[in-house]
Amino acid sequence: MTARRANQFPVEVNGQRLWADLSLLSRIGMMGDGMHRLAFSIDELRARQLMIHLLQKAGLEVRTDGIGNTFGRLPGRDRNAPAVLMGSHIDTVPQGGRFDGAVGVMGALEVLRTVREQGLAHTHPLELVIFVAEESSRFGVATIGSGVMVGEIGPDQLEALRDAEGTQLSELLARMGITPEDVRRARRPPKSIKAYLELHIEQGRILEEERLRIGVVTAIAAATRFRVRFVGRADHSGATPMHLRKDALVAAAHLIAFVEELCREKYRGRVVGTVGTLALEPNALNVVPGRVELGVDVRGVLGEVKQEAGERIMGEARRIGGARDLTVEVSLIKQEEPVPLDRRMVEMLRTICRDRGIPHRLMPSGAGHDAMKVARVAPTAMLLIPCREGISHNPAEWTEMEHVALGANCLLEAAVRLAR
Amino acid sequence: MTARRANQFPVEVNGQRLWADLSLLSRIGMMGDGMHRLAFSIDELRARQLMIHLLQKAGLEVRTDGIGNTFGRLPGRDRNAPAVLMGSHIDTVPQGGRFDGAVGVMGALEVLRTVREQGLAHTHPLELVIFVAEESSRFGVATIGSGVMVGEIGPDQLEALRDAEGTQLSELLARMGITPEDVRRARRPPKSIKAYLELHIEQGRILEEERLRIGVVTAIAAATRFRVRFVGRADHSGATPMHLRKDALVAAAHLIAFVEELCREKYRGRVVGTVGTLALEPNALNVVPGRVELGVDVRGVLGEVKQEAGERIMGEARRIGGARDLTVEVSLIKQEEPVPLDRRMVEMLRTICRDRGIPHRLMPSGAGHDAMKVARVAPTAMLLIPCREGISHNPAEWTEMEHVALGANCLLEAAVRLAR
Repeated sequence: MTARRANQFPVEVNGQRLWADLSLLSRIGMMGDGMHRLAFSIDELRARQLMIHLLQKAGLEVRTDGIGNTFGRLPGRDRNAPAVLMGSHIDTVPQGGRFDGAVGVMGALEVLRTVREQGLAHTHPLELVIFVAEESSRFGVATIGSGVMVGEIGPDQLEALRDAEGTQLSELLARMGITPEDVRRARRPPKSIKAYLELHIEQGRILEEERLRIGVVTAIAAATRFRVRFVGRADHSGATPMHLRKDALVAAAHLIAFVEELCREKYRGRVVGTVGTLALEPNALNVVPGRVELGVDVRGVLGEVKQEAGERIMGEARRIGGARDLTVEVSLIKQEEPVPLDRRMVEMLRTICRDRGIPHRLMPSGAGHDAMKVARVAPTAMLLIPCREGISHNPAEWTEMEHVALGANCLLEAAVRLAR
Repeated sequence: MTARRANQFPVEVNGQRLWADLSLLSRIGMMGDGMHRLAFSIDELRARQLMIHLLQKAGLEVRTDGIGNTFGRLPGRDRNAPAVLMGSHIDTVPQGGRFDGAVGVMGALEVLRTVREQGLAHTHPLELVIFVAEESSRFGVATIGSGVMVGEIGPDQLEALRDAEGTQLSELLARMGITPEDVRRARRPPKSIKAYLELHIEQGRILEEERLRIGVVTAIAAATRFRVRFVGRADHSGATPMHLRKDALVAAAHLIAFVEELCREKYRGRVVGTVGTLALEPNALNVVPGRVELGVDVRGVLGEVKQEAGERIMGEARRIGGARDLTVEVSLIKQEEPVPLDRRMVEMLRTICRDRGIPHRLMPSGAGHDAMKVARVAPTAMLLIPCREGISHNPAEWTEMEHVALGANCLLEAAVRLAR
């Protein structure tokens, strides 16, 4: 880093304390194959208990809302002013990593501790939030806690959710004493939030490849997801000449190659497209595949462009199927809208990075985050820090103490400026 | 069919009796989703008992060899002359059809019944064989019974075999009182077989498409099988730009398309190639596939040409992997040699079809059969009859009574000519 400027921000977070707390949290739910803190699991509850303990020790006013989102508040000069909110989540995917979500929560805690210890003046309350069930792994729906807080998800939407073992989320909540009314009341008045800031690992390799330290998120990409099923005919692989086949896997292969080329060339830098799942029947070495089902995920920060790319892929699926005399079924799973983040907050974060001499860039977030829910009701921004080789949702997920500390320092400066 | 010739063969099989017996056999192991007579399963044993009963009722000398192959013999004028052997198998794949194998066994039984009832003179014994474990579904190895009979498979090879539930074949045989010595003694002296004839459904659509009634097999294609594993990197599907990905499924897709195009164009009519299995990890909609394993099956009746095609595919796999910076592992599963059938027998069968005015053609068999094992020790030929839409290894497998009867009549004439 270059020499600090004259009007530099007066204090810094305690990076080692922050790192030690991340390490403490990572012991809960850590198995041989990574972190296992699934939403509402026993280890996720243990982690929440740890956080409540740390929040109280930090002298914050702690409360939990009707769905289980936990808040730690540091009142400002005006107790009734809208709060500057910071946070993320502590639930993980199965075999997850120790930084996804945790960095944003512990970073915010360290910011609040620093503000309090250093006696930094602020008018607006500073508040930390730990959202529940950000990961979709257990119930198939992501960002449940933040969705409930902004009123996008209510008890009716939760009613339908079950995990792979058939456990109903509403049952699980009831056993914890959470009623539909509690969930409804967890909706927080938008006026009570002045701004929301989330620090997160990048979960991609752009910062690392470009040797940057901070990414300021301009928009959160949204996904178009759909399934394509090709139905051909399962034939004997030895006895069926090539020209008499209706091979569903060959059709699928052409579509997979098309998705990659379309997004790599025509939509370069604007849309990413992935065929992430594939199931084939009968899946035997001596049978021509008769049925293949693909899952396609298309993301971009420009809703119309992303939607257009998705439609081209669906069109190509139908074209390939028609040309090969196969049946093609396309079913839309979801069509989300990208979420642009608050321009003024983005500008402020960029200025902070520039003034501190931090190598940084503006960038979209390809991954979804709680921030995209909060952005519906309050000005929102995100800071990304590099993670090793972009690996995430994986036991090998890793970032460095200095990245976390730098991210927390930017978060600190932004929060204090917003809360002035 | 056109008018019969002057020197026409004097008798015909009883097509309705043959059809009724096929129907009787199909009741054993028939479930809602097709035939289940896996090798050495209770229903396969029940089917063997039925066959022994029918063989005895037909007045044949019945015996079972050391591995369980069952023989029914009609002595000729010279009891010690080598036998004209006919047969096939009665075990099925799971969810199999009622004609694969069964047609060859019941057709041969009907031939022997007809010869005996009509008092057709023959010098050589006429003999029926029901081979065990022709299908590879249970133990991963095909044509075990015929392999043991010709001495290609011995107790040592059987020792290693287990089914999906972990049951050892040698254990299973021991419980049926079959010792390694019995298996060894099941090897039949080649001199005891004058010729082998097998009637079978085509398991392909060539006859149906060309509106033919009989296929005379010139050679049985052999397979080159190998696995290709692409190892790339599992990345977040939203956060990873296209140019930073190592998508194993995209690499696999290019290989799948290559296999089809190579066999459809360059090796048209000479080699068929199929990617029949595919497994990917992590197989999640929001993750770029990090690992993909493909199973490739390449078949042809010319060993060198088939091998060359296989090598081109393996080379292309390495090229694709190299170009995309993925790790590629190729492992050969098997490299079989195609089996040409006996020219003089093929000529005789062709003459029979021609003289009878049957629309027919010479053709390779893409599927493997017991005949390819017997061909190692005795002159061998095969007759194929059409099956509806080429569907086989499937509950929808179907052929017509008239096809079966016509095939059995050709078999009858060929067997009697050979046994004269």
